[in-house]
Amino acid sequence: MRTVEWHDGNVRMIDQKAIPWKLEVVDLKDYAAVAAAITDMTVRGAPAIGAAAAFGMALAAKNSPATSLASLLTDLDQAGAVLKAARPTAVNLAWAVDRMFKHALSGFADAQALRDGLLTEAQRVADEDVAINQRMGAYGAALIQDGFTILHHCNTGALATVDYGTALGVVRAAFEQGKRIHVLLDETRPRLQGARLSAWEMEQLGVSYDILPDTAAGYYMQKGEINIVLVGADRVAANGDFANKIGTYQVAVLAKENGIPFYTVAPTSTVDLTLASGAEIPIEERDKSEVLTPYGHAITPPHFHARNPAFDVTPHRYLSGIITENGIARPPFTDSLKRAVAGEKV
Amino acid sequence: MRTVEWHDGNVRMIDQKAIPWKLEVVDLKDYAAVAAAITDMTVRGAPAIGAAAAFGMALAAKNSPATSLASLLTDLDQAGAVLKAARPTAVNLAWAVDRMFKHALSGFADAQALRDGLLTEAQRVADEDVAINQRMGAYGAALIQDGFTILHHCNTGALATVDYGTALGVVRAAFEQGKRIHVLLDETRPRLQGARLSAWEMEQLGVSYDILPDTAAGYYMQKGEINIVLVGADRVAANGDFANKIGTYQVAVLAKENGIPFYTVAPTSTVDLTLASGAEIPIEERDKSEVLTPYGHAITPPHFHARNPAFDVTPHRYLSGIITENGIARPPFTDSLKRAVAGEKV
Repeated sequence: MRTVEWHDGNVRMIDQKAIPWKLEVVDLKDYAAVAAAITDMTVRGAPAIGAAAAFGMALAAKNSPATSLASLLTDLDQAGAVLKAARPTAVNLAWAVDRMFKHALSGFADAQALRDGLLTEAQRVADEDVAINQRMGAYGAALIQDGFTILHHCNTGALATVDYGTALGVVRAAFEQGKRIHVLLDETRPRLQGARLSAWEMEQLGVSYDILPDTAAGYYMQKGEINIVLVGADRVAANGDFANKIGTYQVAVLAKENGIPFYTVAPTSTVDLTLASGAEIPIEERDKSEVLTPYGHAITPPHFHARNPAFDVTPHRYLSGIITENGIARPPFTDSLKRAVAGEKV
Repeated sequence: MRTVEWHDGNVRMIDQKAIPWKLEVVDLKDYAAVAAAITDMTVRGAPAIGAAAAFGMALAAKNSPATSLASLLTDLDQAGAVLKAARPTAVNLAWAVDRMFKHALSGFADAQALRDGLLTEAQRVADEDVAINQRMGAYGAALIQDGFTILHHCNTGALATVDYGTALGVVRAAFEQGKRIHVLLDETRPRLQGARLSAWEMEQLGVSYDILPDTAAGYYMQKGEINIVLVGADRVAANGDFANKIGTYQVAVLAKENGIPFYTVAPTSTVDLTLASGAEIPIEERDKSEVLTPYGHAITPPHFHARNPAFDVTPHRYLSGIITENGIARPPFTDSLKRAVAGEKV
């Protein structure tokens, strides 16, 4: 099944908080529930929350009592604002809401036609995500040689997208080509997406892997055991700076220090050409309980102090390239990203 | 109370596995139990396990049925081998055992005199550790300016030593001088010594702190919020390369990249002049269950794969200096360390 889909008039998604213990789905009956599921990370991963927001807009349209186009658009505007506010860093959320709203303005005859049109458009967002991931997988897999060990941070697999994955989609594509590969998975504190989600996905696919404490990535780089680093992205600025899960910046610095190629795998929906550099990307700080009491298991008393920034920004100078659905963007990214976003092959 | 001490004919130590939840002690009645407590990390921290090994040797002498000096020395030789094998990376363990054995050969009249002499020597090791830490604290505190934010990895406080601490001893000394400081504590996966032990110690002392996921240290460096990095050491080679808790190398690389001074605080008992470089330091790999099921809380099913190297080696080129009890050793370390070990002021 897909990570996010339309099911029987609701938005159905895999509950990622339950993995690796159970594969459970939740059915969300209104857009506010979709926004809450994005905030509490029932669904996470930039492309997946983009698709969730698109379906959330379709759900808002379906549930709205509006009978006129104008009042339905007003309701959609409000729903879009709530969905966009669910998390601040990944641009896919705003991208998907804006795409749905633009589609809503594309000349529907009446409210019911708009409702149908939005569901079709959300479905298109989801289908395109899968196709885009497969294209990125093919471009990226060309970088993976037989026998490579790949370092990966956080989760960027099928669960982070509608299906197939971004950085782990590249891993999957290389694996499906018969290359013998091994993946070292940063566990990715505080929420442990690497240990819980990525390892579970590698188990499903049968790809050889080891989970690493985040403290050990540099150790294996220093030993010469890592051939390439692949990560995802939550927002890429026009100059190639990009926000991704906290810890990505560290991995990038270590890769540079050890002469290891470092790539982000990012669909063009993740690129935000309105931002000149990564300094403008808003960074979400989440509750300290995620650090002190991960998944209900207290590692300290609750009054202990902690910080919990959810993302960091990796400056573009650490990037070997950005793997998009239109090819691998290379420096200078101000040029290559603009062309990739415009749909040119880069 | 001290982390390790002689109590009523036994070796008493704080059970560090119980902190931050409970301050509990265990009384160990034979040297094999001391070795087991070192292996299972009831006691950890290079200076603390050195003192534990010294008391373990005194305990072995006390419990030996030997009536002759020669047979007591044979028993001590065997106990020393067991204690040295308890953990491979920190040199303090071997240093303390060797010091005790050398003392045993210093001309005692009979077995009982040797037993008494070894207990006195173990007590001296413990007392010296506290005095050495206070001296390192004074040297190091001179580097800490009012208003500094200090990044720290693992635990190097009173618990990692007999008392007072090494890197956190420097923090304590600066705090006791009235400097307003803030400490960012890497939580230090997999065993979370930063979150569990260092934060507990900062709570006791009243020092301002925040726990960070290990993924966030670079984020705060990049933001310019960290003025200095202080860590401990488990073994320092003659050229200044040093082994310390896994993740130290990463912090060192990030500090260099961000132009932040990076120091290790290491008593000369941690310096191993027999090793030309860090490449010769043995690195312990521990069981994957420490990664997958920290303190009994499973984060993945037990059959998932993980790696768990307990230490890494930081090349000397990342070091601004090595704070010893004889002053701050500066590059070239091959010269300054040799002088510090010889007891010269550096």
